Amino acid sequence: MNQAIQDQIAGNHCFGCGPHNEGGLQIKSYWTDDDGATCRYEPEMHQCAGPADIVNGGIIATVIDCHCVCTAMAHAYRRADRPIGSQPNIWFVTGSLLVRYQAPTPISAPFDVVARVAEWSDRKTIVNCDLLAGGLVCATGEVIAVRVTEDRYRRS
Amino acid sequence: MNQAIQDQIAGNHCFGCGPHNEGGLQIKSYWTDDDGATCRYEPEMHQCAGPADIVNGGIIATVIDCHCVCTAMAHAYRRADRPIGSQPNIWFVTGSLLVRYQAPTPISAPFDVVARVAEWSDRKTIVNCDLLAGGLVCATGEVIAVRVTEDRYRRS
Repeated sequence: MNQAIQDQIAGNHCFGCGPHNEGGLQIKSYWTDDDGATCRYEPEMHQCAGPADIVNGGIIATVIDCHCVCTAMAHAYRRADRPIGSQPNIWFVTGSLLVRYQAPTPISAPFDVVARVAEWSDRKTIVNCDLLAGGLVCATGEVIAVRVTEDRYRRS
Repeated sequence: MNQAIQDQIAGNHCFGCGPHNEGGLQIKSYWTDDDGATCRYEPEMHQCAGPADIVNGGIIATVIDCHCVCTAMAHAYRRADRPIGSQPNIWFVTGSLLVRYQAPTPISAPFDVVARVAEWSDRKTIVNCDLLAGGLVCATGEVIAVRVTEDRYRRS
């Protein structure tokens, strides 16, 4: 069974991807192959941009950020040949987030974010992604995820 | 009286800065000088990152995106020597958003985003910003805002 990456990680309170954050987006990321993961998100009507029929750019950035960082974490567990969430924890934080908005994303239907690990070192993982809606690439993203220690993560 | 940029623009439903979006952030941007504007935002507890005591990166991206685009709009009205929101409307959308996260942003206190217009042409305005919390720059942002027609904005 392909369990969501977020549902294998304990103690994640995140607005974007914390499974128990009732005011958050609760996105789910699923591993698809050796280097990538996908996330389908169904936007809510209040998550619109200036015009009420398209998705807010900040919501898109939030989904891309969390999905790509979780992809980096899952990739690091795979490289270590360990189940996601096994001890000791592997944590990443966002070093930088770049989103290019190419077309309006309709709010009336789910969209998919397809992420691929492009580069990695011990410290950094670069994840690229496409946001697809109705077969169209509406945005692209690049996240530089930085690996941190448990102590640094908890201090952050 | 220095009225918020968002309160001078009609018909803005945006999750980040729509004044009447009850589920949104309702950020307020205030013009500070010829080339910039500032925004103070008080995060809510559910807008946290993985650790519950710091602000989610997507929320930071949302505030930066809206604040910088509104700064670009206000700057364009000033260049036209017209009050913000006067007819015909001047609209911008986000072309790209880059956020560099430099330090954790505490969720327990408001933070400020200070934006400055760095470059502009008829079509594009580049806005840079710093996110400050407790005197520390916790993130920096760069938004390329793209001017669009009313028709294009409503179609978006």
